[in-house]
Amino acid sequence: MLQNIPSPKTACLLIIGNEILSGRTQDANTRTLALALNQHGIRLLEVRIIPDIEEHIVTTVTACRENFDFIFTSGGIGPTHDDITAACIAKSFNVSLVKHQESFTALEEYFGTERFNTARQRMAYLPEGAVPIADPVAIAPGFIIENVHVLAGVPKIFTATIAALIPTLPQGTALSMTGWHAYGLREGDFAANLTTIQENFPQLDIGSYPYEHPENGKGVALIVKGYHAEQVQDAARILHDLIITQGQTPLAGEP
Amino acid sequence: MLQNIPSPKTACLLIIGNEILSGRTQDANTRTLALALNQHGIRLLEVRIIPDIEEHIVTTVTACRENFDFIFTSGGIGPTHDDITAACIAKSFNVSLVKHQESFTALEEYFGTERFNTARQRMAYLPEGAVPIADPVAIAPGFIIENVHVLAGVPKIFTATIAALIPTLPQGTALSMTGWHAYGLREGDFAANLTTIQENFPQLDIGSYPYEHPENGKGVALIVKGYHAEQVQDAARILHDLIITQGQTPLAGEP
Repeated sequence: MLQNIPSPKTACLLIIGNEILSGRTQDANTRTLALALNQHGIRLLEVRIIPDIEEHIVTTVTACRENFDFIFTSGGIGPTHDDITAACIAKSFNVSLVKHQESFTALEEYFGTERFNTARQRMAYLPEGAVPIADPVAIAPGFIIENVHVLAGVPKIFTATIAALIPTLPQGTALSMTGWHAYGLREGDFAANLTTIQENFPQLDIGSYPYEHPENGKGVALIVKGYHAEQVQDAARILHDLIITQGQTPLAGEP
Repeated sequence: MLQNIPSPKTACLLIIGNEILSGRTQDANTRTLALALNQHGIRLLEVRIIPDIEEHIVTTVTACRENFDFIFTSGGIGPTHDDITAACIAKSFNVSLVKHQESFTALEEYFGTERFNTARQRMAYLPEGAVPIADPVAIAPGFIIENVHVLAGVPKIFTATIAALIPTLPQGTALSMTGWHAYGLREGDFAANLTTIQENFPQLDIGSYPYEHPENGKGVALIVKGYHAEQVQDAARILHDLIITQGQTPLAGEP
């Protein structure tokens, strides 16, 4: 599905953080990045959530930066002992961490000389060749090295940085996504029809997603996505009619 | 961090679904699995969210089942054209999809002969050698083959299946996790102290997580995790005192 379309550029998000893997924190950055990339015509093709373990991070970054056009990382770039992302990225690129004078000066001004201690100075050390990302919210030490974009994990900072960063990337055709959902639909009743519709629109991705609303009961969402807006609208009309023939009422929006 | 502890068994979750990667749906299954595994003494070490593309799924399953003790997959096991997980798992193990007679009979009874059409019959085809997972919520075609546990993606079904499945796995020592958060803390002010605490507890994972509450402002959560409950409590007391020395009030629970 979507593998036959005119290939957009691909992206992979690496979420670096034990707090997601331990279940303590619910990831919010995947959705933020996905929606921003859709609009910009870049396809988020994979997300990996990995722990704060140097070898695990280095291996993952090295593998992924070969396989996707853009890598984004989230997390691990603060001043504490568990912030090891910059060092791991440097290792993956086989370069040193070097003092980035401009960032050092900016951080020193921001914190004042007394509070700009050794821990905070660490944040001004970037992999050699990296370029800092201008941070619209706070002085956070995000940076870019080749196709790897290193961002803070705090959702508010991540969101603001993504909003500023994505427009600077090469633009593709925006992803069109629409569809319907309906209570009372049962996937197995119309799976054959859906296969036919998918076959008739080989350049689109037609997905069928059963859901169970806590109060209103079960249903299915039928979602069509693609990089040809007109075809997406044509397929959505057919999905609308399919729901009618199933005796149910097509509804817009989320169940 | 945690790499030096007596190694628990490791797990990897593969979330198969375009709906997460497109940003339409927020993943909920990672947290469910993580918390259940913590209790059971198995460590969720990685999550990958991958698209409904056969080659991508097969490659990922094949790589991951070598590298982790347990693989869990979520999504793609219904009756529609985009449900290709079972076929991909079969391909990864280089076996055929074969009719599982017991599941076939159960599904036929559940749906009734008339509604048990070709699309629904597909759900009774499992990789050769796979064992169905008894599903406590609905007749859903989850199964186990070697170390790979294939589950439905709908969160309600996933949650119920996990609750039934995890106790059947070999048990380790439960993960202890506790900590404090405090408004007004700034990571850079105490990063050096935190490094010392981490060095004093090499078998624990001490994490520092800045947050920004929409109304109450900024702070940091200090979380300690490990498989030695007593050490975890000792470290938590020290973190409590660290927050006091920073002039802030340690709070329990989520910010």
